[in-house]
Amino acid sequence: MSNLLDTIDSVLLMGPGPSSVNPKVYQALAKSTIGHLDPQFLGLMDGLKESLRKVMYTKNEATITLSGTGSSGMEAVMTNLIEDGEPMLVAVNGYFSERLVEVASRLGAQVDKIEFPWGKPVDPSEVAKKLKEKSYKFVSMVHGETSTGVLNPIKEVGPIVRAAGAYFIVDAVTSLGANELHVDDWCVDALYSCSQKGLGCPSGLSPVTFSARAMEKIAARKKKVPNFYLDMTLLMKYWSGTPRGYHHTAPANMYYAFYEALALILEEGVENVCARHKEVHEYLVAGLEKLGLSLLVEKPWRLPNLNTVLIPQGIEEAAVRKELRQTYKIEVGAGLGSLAGKIWRIGIMGHTARKENVDTLLAALKKILGR
Amino acid sequence: MSNLLDTIDSVLLMGPGPSSVNPKVYQALAKSTIGHLDPQFLGLMDGLKESLRKVMYTKNEATITLSGTGSSGMEAVMTNLIEDGEPMLVAVNGYFSERLVEVASRLGAQVDKIEFPWGKPVDPSEVAKKLKEKSYKFVSMVHGETSTGVLNPIKEVGPIVRAAGAYFIVDAVTSLGANELHVDDWCVDALYSCSQKGLGCPSGLSPVTFSARAMEKIAARKKKVPNFYLDMTLLMKYWSGTPRGYHHTAPANMYYAFYEALALILEEGVENVCARHKEVHEYLVAGLEKLGLSLLVEKPWRLPNLNTVLIPQGIEEAAVRKELRQTYKIEVGAGLGSLAGKIWRIGIMGHTARKENVDTLLAALKKILGR
Repeated sequence: MSNLLDTIDSVLLMGPGPSSVNPKVYQALAKSTIGHLDPQFLGLMDGLKESLRKVMYTKNEATITLSGTGSSGMEAVMTNLIEDGEPMLVAVNGYFSERLVEVASRLGAQVDKIEFPWGKPVDPSEVAKKLKEKSYKFVSMVHGETSTGVLNPIKEVGPIVRAAGAYFIVDAVTSLGANELHVDDWCVDALYSCSQKGLGCPSGLSPVTFSARAMEKIAARKKKVPNFYLDMTLLMKYWSGTPRGYHHTAPANMYYAFYEALALILEEGVENVCARHKEVHEYLVAGLEKLGLSLLVEKPWRLPNLNTVLIPQGIEEAAVRKELRQTYKIEVGAGLGSLAGKIWRIGIMGHTARKENVDTLLAALKKILGR
Repeated sequence: MSNLLDTIDSVLLMGPGPSSVNPKVYQALAKSTIGHLDPQFLGLMDGLKESLRKVMYTKNEATITLSGTGSSGMEAVMTNLIEDGEPMLVAVNGYFSERLVEVASRLGAQVDKIEFPWGKPVDPSEVAKKLKEKSYKFVSMVHGETSTGVLNPIKEVGPIVRAAGAYFIVDAVTSLGANELHVDDWCVDALYSCSQKGLGCPSGLSPVTFSARAMEKIAARKKKVPNFYLDMTLLMKYWSGTPRGYHHTAPANMYYAFYEALALILEEGVENVCARHKEVHEYLVAGLEKLGLSLLVEKPWRLPNLNTVLIPQGIEEAAVRKELRQTYKIEVGAGLGSLAGKIWRIGIMGHTARKENVDTLLAALKKILGR
């Protein structure tokens, strides 16, 4: 390998993502590449669809992986569903729900926000009230808010949105693979996530799912989707058509790695994986409390895989992160948006979510903070 | 690795892409992943920009890699540059130039086509004539047409477009890394390619470059770019900002592999790499002619790295490809669009472009065709 690559450290990734990756996934990633229309590759794509449906608890036919990062999933869901001027309600309580507003507005949606404080969850009864006041085509929110460490009550909001006749759009970038998430039972119409956090693969892919009614809305569009690259109708011809229609040259090696990462989750069992994340979260929180540290989010709303830790008074937060990274080869995240400088973000996701990693981090923090 | 992955063959990739990959690139791909804002990763991004500028012969500051396949590059160039109703001239002589029309039209451009037969090159004097008849904001064309195997005269068209005051948009998906291509000298304003053909990395990334005047046009837009994921202004804050601004979680492992693939090209020398492609092309053509096969494209217009071979009478083209793949583990491509059933597409790109691979293919073809 070239010199520059050799200088890059092997880091224990305990930030908001990416997370550390199982060696088996790297092995899959480096497998010889293959053609995007090769029958064996099309078989792998079938396997990917099946695995994703299991992980997402959905029967949706339109369950695939986009050839872009999690952010491309947000773009895809919005660009396929939104037609000019359609009203959308976005529940905002963090950086990524603000981004939902930005992305949807750029695509011509008329967006209303219903706001909640950063660090607090979305209140389903407030959403219900808003839906009685005005008719919306879409309601959109984030399941696990990466910026605040809050787990929002998708399960409660979904049936309210469905009853109001709107489409329910969910960002599951930092929740899928680490938290209970039942797409069909929770009345979700469109959901996207990423390969690199709870699902334990490197960054680069975005799994998405669309309900049958969401796909019907797309089929009935007056104008074509402005984004050819992320056009779900064209993508479905590639993922399910007879014969398969060429659309783009899929990143085969990323698909290999993602398939392997999902296989590892299914082997362990989705519920067991979620339970492991919760257990490691509790172990981490107990350890942090022993060091005199406390969390931003109250117990009932905590996103177990992304822990937002309040910076103690008198501590230079960036210096601590720098020492963790340089001396201990551990990454933790800084605060984002209005929480910059106020919190650390400690991720325990995917292959990172093991007690031994928490021990490593706590030992390093103890030394650095002198506690 | 899981069973399904184990069943996937190792294939000699001699189709229209992806091409086979150097083992050093796979080694880089499987390196431990790292955070997208880690200082070492930001250093790698600087290295990537520098390598891309060398490979593209450009000084453009806005020279980066998108986190999507080559098709995302087409989307990005169009969505950033086009504002509603702006007139564009597209030179059409194959499947991918038709796609330029489709993508630009979806984004609101008023597209006129200037058409040339599939298998023939774009005629610069015809483009010049058209530019005298009507004022266009953009002229767009494909350098190496993957569907026909024609190398279009970008070098001649560029100065004509610049003199007419239009922006010149070039698709270099199947040309970059295998053919002479001088972005600055040839007056190109926006160009995209892919990681997986001439550049010798697996599929998944799209290098792009925008001239200073193209970036000025983007900065002066009346409306924001509708596509947040591919917004060049935001992407440049991530690639060059002080401090770097978060935009998306870059696919670090793909960046590793791409950096290594570019390093291998720069080590060999861009001109030497292009000469190798040409030499292997001539070796292939001589071998094909010995088997009584001939090419669709006349000699002066041939794209050396993608050879379109006429199917001899009485040969079932799909059966030959199937036997090549199943018995010999070699992939060659089928015809696309109006050339389906009429040609094979034989790629010699990147790591595939070596005489030993041509020998392997010719020996297999000789047996299958019984010549």
